[in-house]
Amino acid sequence: MTSHYYVHGYSERESVRLSDQANTLEELLHSDTKYPAGSMVLEAGCGIGAQTVILSRNSPQARITSIDISEESLDKAKERAAGQGVKNAEFRVENIFDLPFEDESFDHVFVCFVLEHLKEPVKALASLRRVLRTGGTITVIEGDHGSCFFHPETEAAVKTWNSLVEVQAKLGGNSLIGRQTYPLLKRAGFTNATVSPRMVYSDASRPHMEEGFVRRTIIPMVEGVRESAIEMGIIDAATFDHGIADLYRTAGEEGTFNYMFFKGVGRK
Amino acid sequence: MTSHYYVHGYSERESVRLSDQANTLEELLHSDTKYPAGSMVLEAGCGIGAQTVILSRNSPQARITSIDISEESLDKAKERAAGQGVKNAEFRVENIFDLPFEDESFDHVFVCFVLEHLKEPVKALASLRRVLRTGGTITVIEGDHGSCFFHPETEAAVKTWNSLVEVQAKLGGNSLIGRQTYPLLKRAGFTNATVSPRMVYSDASRPHMEEGFVRRTIIPMVEGVRESAIEMGIIDAATFDHGIADLYRTAGEEGTFNYMFFKGVGRK
Repeated sequence: MTSHYYVHGYSERESVRLSDQANTLEELLHSDTKYPAGSMVLEAGCGIGAQTVILSRNSPQARITSIDISEESLDKAKERAAGQGVKNAEFRVENIFDLPFEDESFDHVFVCFVLEHLKEPVKALASLRRVLRTGGTITVIEGDHGSCFFHPETEAAVKTWNSLVEVQAKLGGNSLIGRQTYPLLKRAGFTNATVSPRMVYSDASRPHMEEGFVRRTIIPMVEGVRESAIEMGIIDAATFDHGIADLYRTAGEEGTFNYMFFKGVGRK
Repeated sequence: MTSHYYVHGYSERESVRLSDQANTLEELLHSDTKYPAGSMVLEAGCGIGAQTVILSRNSPQARITSIDISEESLDKAKERAAGQGVKNAEFRVENIFDLPFEDESFDHVFVCFVLEHLKEPVKALASLRRVLRTGGTITVIEGDHGSCFFHPETEAAVKTWNSLVEVQAKLGGNSLIGRQTYPLLKRAGFTNATVSPRMVYSDASRPHMEEGFVRRTIIPMVEGVRESAIEMGIIDAATFDHGIADLYRTAGEEGTFNYMFFKGVGRK
């Protein structure tokens, strides 16, 4: 669930401290998820705990169970949570496809940047649905690398960006999954699903977005697959590096950058 | 300014009457443009008057001068405006690049779906800037065909979509211009430019968007370039038609569709 690629990209994001809080990814993606006091929340695929900390901050009275298949990631998650004073989250090594919890054990399920890494996302959602109580909600957040477009759009930048999509596909994931959030929730049996796209846009009038999102989140995420992409024969080193240099220009004086996240909420 | 392609696409849109007003393109793109009573507004490239009617409705006390280079389009615009009771718009055949107005004649300039058809968009903006008074605003609205992504994403659907982009490029336009709104405004000398992306998203839970936007606006726009795309050798008829059939699936039970418009406002 947590490849090197994943950890690199999203741990980098965590180091980002943007000046304009209203425009941060955290605000954009998480501010409308608040769980009531006492509610039992399952965070599936918590990785290194980047979202756990946010969940805990927004729902300080909820009881969060955060699981991941990687013990190594969970160790980092525990350390991070402890460092940030998280008191209402418990961490457990568990497999989404083989959950040890009883039927209807949780009031809410939260899954963020996880389905993109799974070969069988509907099966994962159905497994999570089993442990959700009737009437409870599932919240799914995913990006979509196919939503990305930028200016200037050079051939090298596009090739380098696409190598990111191909690497994840070869690892058995699907980085174009965001657009499928609605049909996936429906196929897994959730009802009343609603999906809201969340867009990130930067130009030179939004320097904090250029810095926080493009230079410090997106480009490091792409750089994180450099070795894999070259080893897998998807792209040569020179083109990749040229593409990275061109991507930096999209955060420059004349540049613009666009990316879309999707947030879906379904009910059991 | 108004190719057959243009007229077909956007006149088709005009026939769309959506049930949920809050989600119409009109609401999305135009609701935040309201000019004060008595202000002089230049609408440059009004085409068949689709936006003139909206401008007039939202700013009934402004004095609108709507120009287009095509007399044929203007005749349709006049007819449409008369039919919808527009009383505050005057229509004139004029060339954006050679405006007969004195410097600083207008309080506001409005340009919607025009720059995408021009070989020299910055020159057009600079020409419009000349006739704008100091302190006045320019509003630019453009789509970006490269912002489009959908599910299911078949090879034929992507090829057919891309043929739309290529046809417009061969006609001297740039249908990927939306993302450039900010740098274009800056290069033309406008200050305090702000650009806000406006996203259209549809899935099966939003049937009015699937019907009004995907089936009745987007797909007819693509169908409008069928003959040109085939004649220009960009795509063969069988692939194009296959692509159209696949695009209809993006408005089906399992489909999703995404498209981005950009609205920029600059000041002289």
